[in-house]
Amino acid sequence: MGGGFNMLHLTSTHNPKVKQVAQLRNKSDRDESSLFLIEGYREILRATDADWDLQTLFICEELFLGSNEQALIERIRKKNSQIFTCNKAVFQKMSYRDRPDGLLAIAPQRKLSLSHLEQAFVKNRAPLFVVAEAIEKPGNLGTILRSSDAVGVDGLIVCDRCTDIFNPNVVRASVGTLFTVPTIEEKGETTLTWLKEHHVTIVAATPHGEREFTEVDLTQPVAIAVGTEQLGLSERWMKQATLQVRIPMRGIADSLNVAMATTLLLYEALRQRQLK
Amino acid sequence: MGGGFNMLHLTSTHNPKVKQVAQLRNKSDRDESSLFLIEGYREILRATDADWDLQTLFICEELFLGSNEQALIERIRKKNSQIFTCNKAVFQKMSYRDRPDGLLAIAPQRKLSLSHLEQAFVKNRAPLFVVAEAIEKPGNLGTILRSSDAVGVDGLIVCDRCTDIFNPNVVRASVGTLFTVPTIEEKGETTLTWLKEHHVTIVAATPHGEREFTEVDLTQPVAIAVGTEQLGLSERWMKQATLQVRIPMRGIADSLNVAMATTLLLYEALRQRQLK
Repeated sequence: MGGGFNMLHLTSTHNPKVKQVAQLRNKSDRDESSLFLIEGYREILRATDADWDLQTLFICEELFLGSNEQALIERIRKKNSQIFTCNKAVFQKMSYRDRPDGLLAIAPQRKLSLSHLEQAFVKNRAPLFVVAEAIEKPGNLGTILRSSDAVGVDGLIVCDRCTDIFNPNVVRASVGTLFTVPTIEEKGETTLTWLKEHHVTIVAATPHGEREFTEVDLTQPVAIAVGTEQLGLSERWMKQATLQVRIPMRGIADSLNVAMATTLLLYEALRQRQLK
Repeated sequence: MGGGFNMLHLTSTHNPKVKQVAQLRNKSDRDESSLFLIEGYREILRATDADWDLQTLFICEELFLGSNEQALIERIRKKNSQIFTCNKAVFQKMSYRDRPDGLLAIAPQRKLSLSHLEQAFVKNRAPLFVVAEAIEKPGNLGTILRSSDAVGVDGLIVCDRCTDIFNPNVVRASVGTLFTVPTIEEKGETTLTWLKEHHVTIVAATPHGEREFTEVDLTQPVAIAVGTEQLGLSERWMKQATLQVRIPMRGIADSLNVAMATTLLLYEALRQRQLK
C-alpha cells in the first residue's frame, strides 16, 4: 500500500502511542480520556459501518489474515483518522489478543442518555429494553450486547456499572454489536424513574420468580432486568419490578449464567411479538 | 480437623502427586490414564452427590471459603478415597484457578455408550438429546452441559470431539452438571445411525435454516444438533438432518455463539413440551 500522506510509522515500543494504548486497558484511563480501544478487523469494520469515528488506527500488514483490510483502511483514511503502520513487535506489544490480526484503533466514547431511547416509543411496535445491573464480567456484558443486537432491542441500559461498556473485553465479546445497540450507562434510581414514567413493564429475572418466563406477556413495552452474577438483582429492582419471572431449572444447578438468562427472555419476547 | 487415618500430608511441590495433577491438564494424559481433575467445592459436591467416585482428594484448609467443606470431606473419606492435606504452596501449584478454594480431586472418567441412552425411550415422554459436533472451546461445551442439565435432556452426545468432556475447563464451565447429564463421546457416523434407528428427529441449527426454531415441532423425539464455532455442522449432519432451523437475527451480527444457540433451542423444546 505504500506510505501515503496522513500515514505514520511506529517502529519503537517506547513510542508514547504504545503507552497510550496500554493505558486504555484501564477503566480509569478510559473514563478520564473518554477514549477506548477497538481491536480486530470485524470489530473495526462494524464500528466503521456504524459511522463510529476512529481517532487513531494502528495497522500491521504482516499480521493481516484476510484480503479486505486495505479497503477498510481506505475508508477510515478518508475520514481523517490518524493512521500508524507498525512493525510486528510494536503491534504485538499493543494488542491484547492471543492472535492479533493487525488492526487496532483508538476511538472516542459515545455517551448516550435515556432521552436517546425515547425514539423507541414512536415506532410502530412496543419497545423492548434490557436493564443490566452491576454486571461484573466483561464477557457477560458483551454477550448481552450480542443477544440484544440479535433480537433488535431498542436499548441496553447498564445500571450502577461495575464493568464499563468500553472495556476491551466487552467490545470483543460483543463482536462489535456495541456500535449499533443503543447502550446507556445510568444510575439505577434514574432508570427506574424513567421506565415508570414511560409505562414500561419491568420484568425481573430471578430464580424465585412466581411465573415462568414463557407464561407472561412480553408484547407490551418491556424492560428485561437482570442483575449480578453472584447476587442477582438488587432489592431496589426486585421491589419495583412489575413482574418477577423464573427460568425453569430441571436439573441439579439452580440458575443459568446471566447472559444466557437474558438471551432466553429476549428471544421469548421476540417469539411472542412475532405471533402478534 | 486433625490427621486421622487415610489422611496424608503433602508438603513439597516435588511430590509425584503434584506432577500427576499437572499432567492431567493434558488431554493425552487424561486419555491414557482415564482419570481427570475436579476442582472446587461446588463441583466436588455435585460429583459426590452424583455418586461419582473420587480416587484422590487434595485439601488445603487455609483456602476454604465456607464452612461446609468438612462435612463434604467426611462423606468422601467414607468412600475410601485417598485424602491429602496440602500446604498453601503445594495446593496453589496444583490448582488451575485464579482463586483456589482448597478442594481438588482426581477422579476416574466414566465412559457411557449410546446404549446407555436407550432408557430414555421407555419414559413417558419423548426423549430430548443434544448432539455437539467438534466443539472446540471448553467453555462452550461446559455451557451446553449446563443448559442440558437445566432443561433435563436425556443425553448429550459429543461427536468427533475436539475438546474432551473431561477437560478441566469443561468441568468448570459445566458447574458440575457433567456429573449428572448423561454424556457420551461417539463418532458422528455411529451417532447418526443410532438416531435414525431410533426414529429421532435430527434438528440442525444453522443460519441457513429454512424455518425459525420456534416454528417447528420439537415435541417428538428430537436431537438438537450443533457444530463448530467457526464452521457450524459438517456436511454429513446437514445432509442427514430431518429439519434445518435458524434463529432469527435482527441486527448486524449473523450468528449467535453456539452455546447460546443450543440453549435457545433446548428451552424452546421445553416450552413446547410443557404446553402439551
